[in-house]
Amino acid sequence: MDVIVGGGIVGLSIAWRLARSGRPVTVVDPAPASGASHAAAGMLAPVSEVTYTETPLLRLGMASLRRWPSFAAELAEDAGWADRAAASDGATPVADAGGRGARAGASGGPGAGPPSGGPGVGPFGGLEIGEGPRRGLDLRADGTLDVAFGADDLAALDELAAYMDKLGLPVERLTGRECRRLEPMLAPSVRGGLLAPEDAWVDPRRVTAALLVALDRLQVPLVRARAAGLLRDADGKVVGVRLEPSREPSEIRAERVVLAAGAWSAELADVPVRPIKGQIMRLRSPQPLLSRCVRGTVHGSYVYLVPRGDGELVVGATQEELGFDTRVTAGGLYELLRDARELVPGVSELEVADVVAGLRPGTPDNLPIIGPSGTPGLTLATGHYRGGVLLAPLTAALVLADSGGSGGSGDSGDVGGLGDSGSSRRSGGSGDVGGLGGLGGLGGEEGELAALCSPGRFREIS
Amino acid sequence: MDVIVGGGIVGLSIAWRLARSGRPVTVVDPAPASGASHAAAGMLAPVSEVTYTETPLLRLGMASLRRWPSFAAELAEDAGWADRAAASDGATPVADAGGRGARAGASGGPGAGPPSGGPGVGPFGGLEIGEGPRRGLDLRADGTLDVAFGADDLAALDELAAYMDKLGLPVERLTGRECRRLEPMLAPSVRGGLLAPEDAWVDPRRVTAALLVALDRLQVPLVRARAAGLLRDADGKVVGVRLEPSREPSEIRAERVVLAAGAWSAELADVPVRPIKGQIMRLRSPQPLLSRCVRGTVHGSYVYLVPRGDGELVVGATQEELGFDTRVTAGGLYELLRDARELVPGVSELEVADVVAGLRPGTPDNLPIIGPSGTPGLTLATGHYRGGVLLAPLTAALVLADSGGSGGSGDSGDVGGLGDSGSSRRSGGSGDVGGLGGLGGLGGEEGELAALCSPGRFREIS
Repeated sequence: MDVIVGGGIVGLSIAWRLARSGRPVTVVDPAPASGASHAAAGMLAPVSEVTYTETPLLRLGMASLRRWPSFAAELAEDAGWADRAAASDGATPVADAGGRGARAGASGGPGAGPPSGGPGVGPFGGLEIGEGPRRGLDLRADGTLDVAFGADDLAALDELAAYMDKLGLPVERLTGRECRRLEPMLAPSVRGGLLAPEDAWVDPRRVTAALLVALDRLQVPLVRARAAGLLRDADGKVVGVRLEPSREPSEIRAERVVLAAGAWSAELADVPVRPIKGQIMRLRSPQPLLSRCVRGTVHGSYVYLVPRGDGELVVGATQEELGFDTRVTAGGLYELLRDARELVPGVSELEVADVVAGLRPGTPDNLPIIGPSGTPGLTLATGHYRGGVLLAPLTAALVLADSGGSGGSGDSGDVGGLGDSGSSRRSGGSGDVGGLGGLGGLGGEEGELAALCSPGRFREIS
Repeated sequence: MDVIVGGGIVGLSIAWRLARSGRPVTVVDPAPASGASHAAAGMLAPVSEVTYTETPLLRLGMASLRRWPSFAAELAEDAGWADRAAASDGATPVADAGGRGARAGASGGPGAGPPSGGPGVGPFGGLEIGEGPRRGLDLRADGTLDVAFGADDLAALDELAAYMDKLGLPVERLTGRECRRLEPMLAPSVRGGLLAPEDAWVDPRRVTAALLVALDRLQVPLVRARAAGLLRDADGKVVGVRLEPSREPSEIRAERVVLAAGAWSAELADVPVRPIKGQIMRLRSPQPLLSRCVRGTVHGSYVYLVPRGDGELVVGATQEELGFDTRVTAGGLYELLRDARELVPGVSELEVADVVAGLRPGTPDNLPIIGPSGTPGLTLATGHYRGGVLLAPLTAALVLADSGGSGGSGDSGDVGGLGDSGSSRRSGGSGDVGGLGGLGGLGGEEGELAALCSPGRFREIS
């Protein structure tokens, strides 16, 4: 049996994919789905988040983004949410055939047009999202608009556009007027923008809720306790976890422990992971103010706005190195409000629904740490920093591949399909088998991706 | 029997004083202590809140402020909180003799020095607060400091100081340096201030909680239902209230209905009361940042900071005319944070504990409406606008006096004692009998105060 330590989006995704493949698995977490995954905005935006030094992260992000539609479709199906109406968009319910398209291999319902060019498909052959994941998980692929106010910002945007172009990334440089045509609520002071039309986003709270339902349906035990340490045998091999004192049972034996404890991972193993605090706010709007993600740099600090289907607008996020501090502070809230108002003045009228702080698991090189550690019996799946939601499908696939199993097309379906915008990208599951590349092993592109996040790159991990 | 419609600080105070005097009374409220009283900061600051046109309000405020110490001491005693340790100041518990001083007539415990000049007594002969109300209700009389940033603000402060001087109010004009000597956390940009050393404050949430306990101990029925209308007999006399449909019982008969429904009062009677929204924030601090209330005008909007004994810092409040809207908005929160940071930059580091919006019951002349209406059987106690907490003791005393009863010294003890800083001002109750003026009627100063808030001044009230 595998024990997954950590019930955030990464740990739950791994548990779900393993359980789905037939492996016995147990999840240990004192409060599942309440940490960084609960705070996260859910941007799936490898393109607009690209920075000059982080092309490995871009590569991981692109590979995981491609997995999101089928991952989400299968999850919505497994959770029984494929037909679930969206919380608020008030649309008529989708037809059954469409809503259940994910697993049944049907066409994906309304909006599922031809492979490229139909509704929901971006000009660069972006993701196509089925009705199930869109309604159930609020998964959308309507792009990110990065805006600039001053001359310096504009110059930086031009440089970034040139760099992205060189990388072959799909972006469009827009004037201020073009930005406001796309997003009429933008501030009049916006002077230009960069559109990443294929960037996507999802509601991480819905995803973890769906994962918990799916795990429950698969009868995966969820032990609500804190893992206080690893059990080792005489040879040093990890053979399970010890639970915090006073718990019954006080330990769980396992063939493999998968450490997915996010910012808390360093408490259990020698991994270079530290907490990076983020404060984030949710506003409630009668109707959506924006139709895509909007981000920008205001007063030197970076802010983004993520619109949910139900009108909620997520405003994030601070970046603070303060240890295990999850207080929502006056200063953090002030910055979020100031910068959000600068981007979209109309947010002033919106109701404040929720403010939370989460701890991102940061690493020295901002890349996650995924794969077998130097210690037999211990696999790592941590250090996802700002990318836990984006990278969850890829992480689960890498851990599953390392287990020698495959739970379905979502695990590796698109691995060989870089740049392929054909039917394997559709919301259906069973139609994806054409792209199987490194199944059951770590060859091909999957092997390259695994190498990028290998624990072996850090000397202290043994 | 009297039915009190409204379980905010005003309605509960009336019910408590009536019940204490031996009158049968019932309170009707769907959610007691959850409205404006829950939102209020609890400033008891008639001096620093004075404006040029509102001397009647000043007079009411001063009269009610003088009642607060004995009102609070008796309440703490009735609720069994006289010995209660403060939530957080960590001090050793007070001696029993001191803590119970209120009703027993003892000296008021530690800090209760001679009538004037001792600890807790301001230079102008301010209020002396016993240990019971200080610890139990966080009642403090350490003054308000009104600060100014620019030259215009300073000029306005000088004018206000001159006006207050003319009224004989105790204020001191301070330089910026003197302000920072009193409150070291003030912004360096503060250029001057006006200290009202006798202004006080209390924690309204603790007051309503104590009132609910005291009423429970007096076995006063609390009907958790909405009053949907007034019952009238054939002559038009009010004879009770009708409860919202589907409630059992569906009506309550009463000799007198006291309407204390705050912003909702106009739903039941023809009173010129409208809701004025206020958003307010509570910050949490390991130790208090301020030792007195601080207020100021920032960017043209008025902000105040009220420190609680447990380190909480209340930041208030917006003033918005939006009808029955109690949403906490991004814009409201932004203004509070911006202005609080301007006054005391250190608030940035504090945790945001709570943000709420309440509805103040506004009237055309900003004065409350207290006393018998033109309709037999209906007494009004509403329209307290920003002064519900300050004016609760006076309001209860006026309604009780109109009932021909007196429940103890707190009801009228200081009515005749304007300017008297002698022993009748002490935290004890039984020692206050020297000041009884208009007991059982509405003569003397009490009659004059009652005239100021008489419903008769509005034509529409019949």
